Amino acid sequence: MTSTIDLVADLGEGFGAYTIGDDSELLEIVSSANIACGFHAGDPDIMAATVAECVRRGVGIGAHPSFPDLRGFGRRDMGLSASEVQNDVLYQLGALNGFAAFHGTKVTHLAPHGRLGNLVAVRADYAQAVADAAARVDNELIVVAQDGELATAARKAGLDVAIVGIVDRAYQEDGTLLPRSQSGAVLHDPTEIVDRTLRMVVDGKIRCATGDDINIDVDTLLLHGDNPGAVELARQIRSELISAGVRIAPLAEVMDAKRKAA
Amino acid sequence: MTSTIDLVADLGEGFGAYTIGDDSELLEIVSSANIACGFHAGDPDIMAATVAECVRRGVGIGAHPSFPDLRGFGRRDMGLSASEVQNDVLYQLGALNGFAAFHGTKVTHLAPHGRLGNLVAVRADYAQAVADAAARVDNELIVVAQDGELATAARKAGLDVAIVGIVDRAYQEDGTLLPRSQSGAVLHDPTEIVDRTLRMVVDGKIRCATGDDINIDVDTLLLHGDNPGAVELARQIRSELISAGVRIAPLAEVMDAKRKAA
Amino acid sequence: MTSTIDLVADLGEGFGAYTIGDDSELLEIVSSANIACGFHAGDPDIMAATVAECVRRGVGIGAHPSFPDLRGFGRRDMGLSASEVQNDVLYQLGALNGFAAFHGTKVTHLAPHGRLGNLVAVRADYAQAVADAAARVDNELIVVAQDGELATAARKAGLDVAIVGIVDRAYQEDGTLLPRSQSGAVLHDPTEIVDRTLRMVVDGKIRCATGDDINIDVDTLLLHGDNPGAVELARQIRSELISAGVRIAPLAEVMDAKRKAA
Amino acid sequence: MTSTIDLVADLGEGFGAYTIGDDSELLEIVSSANIACGFHAGDPDIMAATVAECVRRGVGIGAHPSFPDLRGFGRRDMGLSASEVQNDVLYQLGALNGFAAFHGTKVTHLAPHGRLGNLVAVRADYAQAVADAAARVDNELIVVAQDGELATAARKAGLDVAIVGIVDRAYQEDGTLLPRSQSGAVLHDPTEIVDRTLRMVVDGKIRCATGDDINIDVDTLLLHGDNPGAVELARQIRSELISAGVRIAPLAEVMDAKRKAA
Repeated sequence: MTSTIDLVADLGEGFGAYTIGDDSELLEIVSSANIACGFHAGDPDIMAATVAECVRRGVGIGAHPSFPDLRGFGRRDMGLSASEVQNDVLYQLGALNGFAAFHGTKVTHLAPHGRLGNLVAVRADYAQAVADAAARVDNELIVVAQDGELATAARKAGLDVAIVGIVDRAYQEDGTLLPRSQSGAVLHDPTEIVDRTLRMVVDGKIRCATGDDINIDVDTLLLHGDNPGAVELARQIRSELISAGVRIAPLAEVMDAKRKAA
Repeated sequence: MTSTIDLVADLGEGFGAYTIGDDSELLEIVSSANIACGFHAGDPDIMAATVAECVRRGVGIGAHPSFPDLRGFGRRDMGLSASEVQNDVLYQLGALNGFAAFHGTKVTHLAPHGRLGNLVAVRADYAQAVADAAARVDNELIVVAQDGELATAARKAGLDVAIVGIVDRAYQEDGTLLPRSQSGAVLHDPTEIVDRTLRMVVDGKIRCATGDDINIDVDTLLLHGDNPGAVELARQIRSELISAGVRIAPLAEVMDAKRKAA
Repeated sequence: MTSTIDLVADLGEGFGAYTIGDDSELLEIVSSANIACGFHAGDPDIMAATVAECVRRGVGIGAHPSFPDLRGFGRRDMGLSASEVQNDVLYQLGALNGFAAFHGTKVTHLAPHGRLGNLVAVRADYAQAVADAAARVDNELIVVAQDGELATAARKAGLDVAIVGIVDRAYQEDGTLLPRSQSGAVLHDPTEIVDRTLRMVVDGKIRCATGDDINIDVDTLLLHGDNPGAVELARQIRSELISAGVRIAPLAEVMDAKRKAA
Repeated sequence: MTSTIDLVADLGEGFGAYTIGDDSELLEIVSSANIACGFHAGDPDIMAATVAECVRRGVGIGAHPSFPDLRGFGRRDMGLSASEVQNDVLYQLGALNGFAAFHGTKVTHLAPHGRLGNLVAVRADYAQAVADAAARVDNELIVVAQDGELATAARKAGLDVAIVGIVDRAYQEDGTLLPRSQSGAVLHDPTEIVDRTLRMVVDGKIRCATGDDINIDVDTLLLHGDNPGAVELARQIRSELISAGVRIAPLAEVMDAKRKAA
C-alpha cells in the first residue's frame, strides 16, 4: 500500500545539563522530529541546536507541546482548562516556530506529548482547543495522532492528519492500542517488531491482540532512542523498510504523495 | 516635525494570579503594546488575553523579551552568552507570534525589557544577537530602541528602528538619558513632563540637563501605568498631543508615514 | 467558652516584584501567620522578610505549603501521588524552618494551602502523608485544619490539631462549610460577620445555614487582607474580640491554655 | 598524618525524569554526600530518596546549595546580592533538613555548589552571608571548603571547617588549585591520581605544579561519578586508602577525631 513513510522520534528532550536519548544517532535514522518546546523538556538552547540540526539534515520539524510539567516530564494531568491548554500549545508552537523561522523554514507538524497526548485522544474539549490552535496558526500544519478526538477535531478544522503507527505496541481490533496495564501490551522482541512494522507499512495490515488481522494505514512510525537497543532497533527498521522498497521521507512529503495518489 | 506618533506601554506583566499595572486603562491610551513573553512576566493565559485585547482595539503588538528571570522581573544580569540571549529572544518572539498568528496578525515590533534592554544598548554582542534574531524571523519587524548598539545592529541587519522617547527622564547633550544615579534624572512634575513631551513631538527639540536644546526625532513615546498618577499622566499626554494636532497611530503606521515623507 | 484565641492570615504570598495582600497591615492584627513557602507563592527573599517581621512582632510562624503551582496559585490539582505530596510538604516545611532557625525560633504550625488544603480534608492518603511529614519533623507542630481527614490523621499521629473558624463562610449542621457553589455560602455583611465571629468565640455557637445553632470550638480565626475592606474588617474583628474580653495570642499559647484548662 | 578521612561526592543531581551520575554506585563508596537542594538540580522526590538512602547506609548528609539556576546547572553568576544569596542558602539548607528530620537526623555539613562555590571562596560578602546562615541555623554544621573567604568567614562564625582535597586537580604552591584554564590543571591518569591521593592523606603532602612539595591537611576527598571511569577510580581510591590503613568515616566523625587528637 504505502510506498512512502515518515520515521519520527521525540528529540530535544534534554534540559540544561541533562540529556535523554541519543539525538545524534536518531537524527541519522528519522525523517521527522517531534521537538520538545520547553514545557516538559527542552530549553531555548536545546531547541535552537535541534532545529539547526534538523534543517541541516532535511529532517521535518514538528512541535511536541506538553503540559507545563518539567518535574513530571509531562506525564501528569495538571487539571487545566481547555482554554489554558490552547494557550500553552500556542505558546510552545509559536516558540518552536521562532527557531524554524530563523532558518527560513517552519514547523510542519504538531504531535502532543505525554499526558496531553493521551488526553487529546479522548477529551473532545482538549482536542478542539489544540486543533483550533493549530489550524488558526497555520492551516498547512499536519497533526500527528492516532485515531481519536484529536484526529476528528483536526480534520474538522481542515487540517491534514497523519496517523502514527506505534511499532512496539499491541493493537486492539478497533485500531486503538492495547492499554499498557494489560499483559502483552508492549512488545520486546526485535524480530517480531520489525516483522510487524514491515507488514504494517507494506501490506497495511496488523495482527491484533485477538489474533485477527485488521487494516491499518499509517503515515509515520514512532521510533525510540532512549536506550542503545532502541536505537539499534530503529536503525534496523529503517534499513528493512528501505530493503522492502519503501521510501522514507519527511511527513510533509508523505502527505503530499498521499494526496496526489488519492 | 513629527505629525504622527505612537504611544507604547509595557503590558501583560502579570503572572498567574499576580498583576502589575492597569492594563485595561492603558489599552485605552496607547497605540502599541510591549507584551511580556513569559520570561520576566506574563504567562500563556495572560499573553493570550493581552494579544486578543490589542487585536480588538487595533493596538500594535510588540514583543518585550527578557532574561529568564521571573523572580527578579528581568532586572538581573544572568551572565548569559550572546548565543543564549539570541535563543531566549527567538523563543519569546516566536511564542508571542503564536498568539498573534491565532488572530491572523503578527508581532510588529520588538523592545527588549529591563536589564536585557539596558545591555543591548551597550553590548555589541548582545545587540547583534538580538538584531539577527529579529531580522531572520521577520525582516519587517521594527526594533524599538534608544540610540546605541541595538539601534546600530538592527539598522545594519536591514531592520527599521523606531526611536523611543522617555518622557519622564532628563536627557544629556548626546541624546542619551541622564543616568538614574544623578540628581534630576527622573522628572516628577506632570506639567513639565507634558510640556517637554509636546515639544519633543511637535518641535523635535528637548532641553537637556545642561539647559541647551538638542534635536530629537522620536517615533514612539513610552508611557507607564504602574500607579494611578501614571495612568492619569499618560491620558493627559495623549489628549494634549491630539489637541496639538498630532495623530496617534500604531508603530507600523508611524514608520510607514515616515518612509513616505522621506 | 474560649477566652483565648489566635488570629491568623495568609502572609508572604507575593513573588519577586509581585505582591498580593497588605502584609504590613495584617501583621498589626494577627497573632499567627500562614507563610507561603515558594510553591504557590513566596520566594526566599519574601520568606526571609516575612519571618523576620513575625519574629520582631511576636507573631507565630506557620508553614503554608502548597502544590508546586506558581502559575495557578496552588489552586490546581496537579495529579500528585501521596508520596510526592509528602516530599513537597517536607521540602517547604523545612525551607521555612530554615528562616525560623536563623532567628533562633521554629515553625509552630502547618496549614496546607489552596487545593492541597481542600484535598487533605477529604483524601485520606494525602492527609496521612502530610500528618506523617509533620509529626516526624517536629511532634510539637500544630496542624491547622477544619474537621476532616487531615485533622483525624494528625491526631492519630500524635499532633495537636487547631480548628480554624472561617468567619465569612456559612456552616452546615455537621460543622463543615456550605460549598461555595451554593447561594449564601460566602458572607459579605461586615456587621453579620463580626456578630457571628464573636458568638463563635465567646459562646462557642454558630447559626448554620438551616437556621439551627450548632456548637463549635475554634482555636484560630482565618482573616483576609486581599482588599482594603478585608483589612478593615479584620481590624474590627480584633477590636471587638478584645472589647468582649477575649485574649488574642499566638496559636502555641492558645493550645497550651486549652491543655491546661482540660 | 590523617588516619581517618571522609569520602564525599555530589549526589541527587537529577531532576524529575533526568539523572546525572550513578548515585547507587557512589553510595557504596562514599561516607558523606553533597545533596542537591532543588536550585541547580534535585527535586523533593529525589532529595527524599537520596536522604533515605544515606540514612540507611550511614552516609553523612550535606547540603549542596546553589544559585537558582536549573537551566545552567548552577554554573552561572546570577548577579545576586549577598542578602539574596543568604536567603537562597537558608531556603535550601532548611529544605534538606526537612528530609533529614523526617528520618530523625540532621544535615551535618554544607558545601556550596558550582559558581556559588567558586564565588564564596573569593567574595567576602557572599562568604559571610553563607557562613552566617549556616552558623545561625546550626552551630554544629561543618562547612566544607578549600582555603579562601568561606573558610575564613566560617571559622570566624564559630563553625568547623573541613578542608576538601580535589584529587584530580593540580595544586599551586599556596595550596590553591591551578586554574582550569592552565595546561595540566586537570589530571587524567588514574595511577597518578591514586598515588597523589594516598600521599595527600597518608603523608599530608602534595607535589604542586612547580614540582615542589607542599603540606596539605585535608578532611575529606571529593570523588566524582559522572562517568564509568570516574566511579571505577573512586572505588580504587577507597580500596587503596583502606589498604594503607586509613579509616573512612563520615565527616562528623573525622572532625571529632581531629578535635580529640588536637
